[in-house]
Amino acid sequence: MADTTITETGPGSYVNPDGAFTRDQRYIATRITADGRDGYPVEAGRYRLVVSRACPWAGRMVIVRRLLGLEEALPMGVAGPTHDKRSWTFDLDPDGRDPVLGIERLQEAFFARFPGYERGITVPAIVDVPTGQVVTNDYRQMTLDLSLEWTALHRPGAPELYPAPLRDEIDFINEQVFEDVNDGVYRCGFAGSQQAYEAAYRRLFGRLDALSERLSTRRYLVGDTITEADVRLFCTLVRFDAVYHGHFKCNRSKLTELPVLWAYARDLFTTPGFGDTIHFGHIKSHYYEVHRDINPTGIVPAGPDPSGWLTPHHREQLGGRPFGDGTPPGPVPPGETVPPLTDQVL
Amino acid sequence: MADTTITETGPGSYVNPDGAFTRDQRYIATRITADGRDGYPVEAGRYRLVVSRACPWAGRMVIVRRLLGLEEALPMGVAGPTHDKRSWTFDLDPDGRDPVLGIERLQEAFFARFPGYERGITVPAIVDVPTGQVVTNDYRQMTLDLSLEWTALHRPGAPELYPAPLRDEIDFINEQVFEDVNDGVYRCGFAGSQQAYEAAYRRLFGRLDALSERLSTRRYLVGDTITEADVRLFCTLVRFDAVYHGHFKCNRSKLTELPVLWAYARDLFTTPGFGDTIHFGHIKSHYYEVHRDINPTGIVPAGPDPSGWLTPHHREQLGGRPFGDGTPPGPVPPGETVPPLTDQVL
Repeated sequence: MADTTITETGPGSYVNPDGAFTRDQRYIATRITADGRDGYPVEAGRYRLVVSRACPWAGRMVIVRRLLGLEEALPMGVAGPTHDKRSWTFDLDPDGRDPVLGIERLQEAFFARFPGYERGITVPAIVDVPTGQVVTNDYRQMTLDLSLEWTALHRPGAPELYPAPLRDEIDFINEQVFEDVNDGVYRCGFAGSQQAYEAAYRRLFGRLDALSERLSTRRYLVGDTITEADVRLFCTLVRFDAVYHGHFKCNRSKLTELPVLWAYARDLFTTPGFGDTIHFGHIKSHYYEVHRDINPTGIVPAGPDPSGWLTPHHREQLGGRPFGDGTPPGPVPPGETVPPLTDQVL
Repeated sequence: MADTTITETGPGSYVNPDGAFTRDQRYIATRITADGRDGYPVEAGRYRLVVSRACPWAGRMVIVRRLLGLEEALPMGVAGPTHDKRSWTFDLDPDGRDPVLGIERLQEAFFARFPGYERGITVPAIVDVPTGQVVTNDYRQMTLDLSLEWTALHRPGAPELYPAPLRDEIDFINEQVFEDVNDGVYRCGFAGSQQAYEAAYRRLFGRLDALSERLSTRRYLVGDTITEADVRLFCTLVRFDAVYHGHFKCNRSKLTELPVLWAYARDLFTTPGFGDTIHFGHIKSHYYEVHRDINPTGIVPAGPDPSGWLTPHHREQLGGRPFGDGTPPGPVPPGETVPPLTDQVL
């Protein structure tokens, strides 16, 4: 497959003959580790995380980095919400260049390492600043490595997002959530046939119903603290009404009509490290302007009203210790703040 | 303008240079009247009303005909929910032909009267059965004429939907509702620029807010009985969450999130003559399959769940006399029933 159409996660994603959307999951598997066995040791200030606030896969990294207090150790560049066929671009930066990497397009960092790279120029990506070369864009591993490999640089009080005793359960939930929810919304939106769409829709809402039941008596997905599993589910839920409900036809109901999940999502949204990374303007702009194959006009809906995110959720009644033996992260560093909810338009 | 692209209401509808959708409102103005001054006197069994259950403008006629008990006097042919560039077709009929008119395409009745007719082949249309010629497709006048010209054929107990003392107020409301709501949703959905879309969106929801306030203390829009004004507003509200919310980007909120209007719409929906004419399968199929310019895949969303339409509305607490001194219509005639809500898929 030499398809170079890119989605958030890569070119080569395609629609099967039966109409099912299939995500290309070939990423750059190089890892940044404490022991540096792939040639990239964990090191404060050496790397640059490149994200878009639009992208749910990048959103995971932005949240985990905040929760673990890695903002200074792993600085972040934010690409604009839209991109062309070739690359995400740094069009939010004053001169259209990332101020540290000095590049206009994320593609340049991929080409610096792999000339002619043909797969997706995707976010999140981590770039090695001295060489300007991309290290990895494998979002599946990146957040786990922040938790397990970057420990020496975690802030005091950083939570354990992937604790050893809960890992099997987290992995199990993550797999279901990936198939049916994280990627499931894309299978609805990019289905090439009515049948494939309806199959994805049934799986999505079947899983959301099961998750609602699970979360009706427990504050978080696994254990009694926030884990990687919550981060991954949150990244889809927070985008649900803004883009997946209408644009991807995930419209059995809005998130706001699923009382348990809506309260769960609001609980996380108002937890430091979650909602303070979200920009609904970027999210809507990206999906509606980039996917011209399903929204030819590129017009971005003005709704929905996001103010409901800040209404009381009462989930603290379920108990739970959000950060376990740790503490919440401090304020968002200057230069990384998002506008107030009511101003999150482009 | 020789644009022959058709929408529900006609070709010639176009998008201005500033991106605003403008509806071609040139219809066949011939009227069927009690005195027959245009050559078409009111006469039981002479005419055939052609509708699609998808179309909100035709929906008005289907409802008013039911409320006034004109089903026998003015038989009805139902076109399928989708159409091609040329015409609505009778693809729901066993052999693809209207059993009375004997035609496959509504276009044939227009051409029978006006060879080469270039404007929209639109529903609702009334066809003169003896000649096979269309008489009128002017939906703005047609419902009023059912009320005022077809009185001799009304059922006993037929309500007054356009009573003389309330006519100015009804006209005033109808004008606002047409501009901002009935046509307003189309201006959102077919806007050719972000600016035009946002202007239409603000007008739509501004008007819905004003209507919510008006209806918070009164059961119906004008007077204390159902009138033409309620029929016209209902036809847009009943389609709101099924198609306008997502497909037309009218997404500040769903109808179900506007408590007063949602209860008002459910009150009407469960009133004989309203909900018993609605087919959500036809509605969704039409909008999503026909408007390929805004939904290129033609995939029809599986949601939303319509069962909420039958939940208690409590609007009877506001008083009001739905049919005034009249009575509700009897059962839907055989052959004109719609499936139960849960089976309204195509």
